[in-house]
Amino acid sequence: MSFRLLATCPATAARAGVLDTPHGPVPTPAFMPVGTQATVKSQDPRELRALGAACLLANAYHLALRPGAETVRRLGGLHRFMGWDGALLTDSGGFQVWSLAPLREVTPEGVHFRSHLDGAPLFFSPESVVALQEALGADVVMPLDVCLDYPTTEAAAAEALALTQRWAERSAAARRRADQMLFGIVQGGMYPHLRRQAAHALAALDLPGYALGGLSVGEPKATTRAMLQAALPALPTERPRYLMGVGAPEDLLMAVGEGVDLFDCTLPTRMARAGGLLTRHGRINLRNARFRAAASPPDPECGCAVCARYSAATLHWLFQEEHALGGRLATYHNLAFLCGLLRDAHAAIQAGSFEAFRAAFLATWVSADPAVGREQRARWRATQERRRTQIKRT
Amino acid sequence: MSFRLLATCPATAARAGVLDTPHGPVPTPAFMPVGTQATVKSQDPRELRALGAACLLANAYHLALRPGAETVRRLGGLHRFMGWDGALLTDSGGFQVWSLAPLREVTPEGVHFRSHLDGAPLFFSPESVVALQEALGADVVMPLDVCLDYPTTEAAAAEALALTQRWAERSAAARRRADQMLFGIVQGGMYPHLRRQAAHALAALDLPGYALGGLSVGEPKATTRAMLQAALPALPTERPRYLMGVGAPEDLLMAVGEGVDLFDCTLPTRMARAGGLLTRHGRINLRNARFRAAASPPDPECGCAVCARYSAATLHWLFQEEHALGGRLATYHNLAFLCGLLRDAHAAIQAGSFEAFRAAFLATWVSADPAVGREQRARWRATQERRRTQIKRT
Repeated sequence: MSFRLLATCPATAARAGVLDTPHGPVPTPAFMPVGTQATVKSQDPRELRALGAACLLANAYHLALRPGAETVRRLGGLHRFMGWDGALLTDSGGFQVWSLAPLREVTPEGVHFRSHLDGAPLFFSPESVVALQEALGADVVMPLDVCLDYPTTEAAAAEALALTQRWAERSAAARRRADQMLFGIVQGGMYPHLRRQAAHALAALDLPGYALGGLSVGEPKATTRAMLQAALPALPTERPRYLMGVGAPEDLLMAVGEGVDLFDCTLPTRMARAGGLLTRHGRINLRNARFRAAASPPDPECGCAVCARYSAATLHWLFQEEHALGGRLATYHNLAFLCGLLRDAHAAIQAGSFEAFRAAFLATWVSADPAVGREQRARWRATQERRRTQIKRT
Repeated sequence: MSFRLLATCPATAARAGVLDTPHGPVPTPAFMPVGTQATVKSQDPRELRALGAACLLANAYHLALRPGAETVRRLGGLHRFMGWDGALLTDSGGFQVWSLAPLREVTPEGVHFRSHLDGAPLFFSPESVVALQEALGADVVMPLDVCLDYPTTEAAAAEALALTQRWAERSAAARRRADQMLFGIVQGGMYPHLRRQAAHALAALDLPGYALGGLSVGEPKATTRAMLQAALPALPTERPRYLMGVGAPEDLLMAVGEGVDLFDCTLPTRMARAGGLLTRHGRINLRNARFRAAASPPDPECGCAVCARYSAATLHWLFQEEHALGGRLATYHNLAFLCGLLRDAHAAIQAGSFEAFRAAFLATWVSADPAVGREQRARWRATQERRRTQIKRT
């Protein structure tokens, strides 16, 4: 397991590299599709391979709740459970405890919380979360961290950071498996000096990679960028950097330019299920009546297996009639779009033309109207709520 | 377009053949997956090709309501709309008008009914249904027929039959496209002499194929068989015979033995979405707790792409968590199972060993407990009802 830098951009901080894992190489920059509950919704992992994904993400919090890490381990580990033989990363659950679990209480030892599924009292410590992820068996694992509301005070951010750092040290000490890479997570709220301090402290642990957490939580994009600029120079160049939860194309290319290598986000998959499709001209909504009789491909500039074989009218119809195939095909396209975007970025960095590549993309790309984003999030939340109610009933 | 008989079974009436269509050959006996609304739910047509389907079925009634046959035609026809380049059959809608539409009134001219979606008044005549299916562009099309309640009186069956026969003649006269095969539909309730009479009368029209409708509607299996034995000898051997709406493995093998070539049924797909999986030992329910920790394949005797890569525990988990991938994978398996069963039957007939093949299958096969069937139908109806309510709301 190692990270190899293949090329750096002469004009920006962008890097092209390869993260070698026991389940194959991950060329970077790379986008990692999210399969929170061990499934990238509606997709067969063979398709994810076909569209160019090299590493998937799953979530230790969700899998600990159900079906349980020990169940997954007995079934041969998470790769086998998912039917995916490529690289895998599991998130620690720090973010999920913060965002989903009711009645959480952070103590120096760990975090007490209740399951968002059935209210059962649970406890995560840095050590238990490492053990959990060792049972699951992903190639890259994350330490338990303390997440923050946004905005938050400097004092609260500093306090959370101190605990996150101690937990990272305890996590590193708790590791038993040599075939997993434990990354550190740089926190620090929106305070550049805290971000820098966090990066320095984590770098001292000489971990195989570093993540940037607690970003893209509602702050202005300039702030996100400033946090990257504060933290990244303090991290060793020969280790991969992973920006958690970022997936909008313009944000990916910004962060690649700052020197980030890995990304994950539910944006492309969640958006797809609501009918949202990424194109080089921005997002389109397949439910829109203008696609009712459109014989052209959903994205005429895309060569993916969906755009090559279906008309926009067919996808419109599938969404109109609530057929599962609609979300499935749109998900495929969106993941192919983002994985392809970063694959192209990798090639451009190697060719020394990343700046021109990024400029060409941004010349036609239209960022989402914030109102559209809000609407899609609301639609998603309603779905989640229905789902949660169903779960509670069973 | 033609039907070629390759071999007949020395011991039964089973036949192996090939139905040549403008969209490729369909080796028979064959099972045709059902995509009522132009989509075999959750499946990409590429997968249907991979699992061995050669011909799919869609429904003229549903497509006439939405998105409209003319819309499909303008988009390049049904093959293109579905993203499927294999053979296609459309059912006429006679059965759907009878089973779904409220306020239907059958007249000699055709049938007046209301859309089950929005109550709009509609009229189907034999001619309009031929035109509808010519706009859709399937390779095999069906004439409008008069369906019957079960049980029904002989007088009612005879009356419906007379109308069905006249409508078949009008349908044949209305045809404009030479690249479509119009089949006749043998009706006649559960009255052998009516079935025989219907078959004779339709055979006189010299149609490219013949279907058997109005069976598997609740009658005893011995009655179904008796109806086949009444009708099939009256049909020309050199034309394909299609038993509509039959899909239980034991029924398929019975009917193949009587000389039926084509089948369709929603059973494997509908069952799959409820967690039901076909195996050589009968149906299993993947939601059953005994699969919670089962590392073995869903069907250990199956070599399909799903059983080769997933554990029963993973499918159990996907159903447990209501992930769409569960129904998708189970659907793939069930269709692979039935298409494979009839592909094997084709090979056995060619090898002269159909009887032994059938006996070997039936030796391990356990027919569904009628209670299980009822439960699965109830589950399906509840889903349909929810769906219908959703549709009405939009």
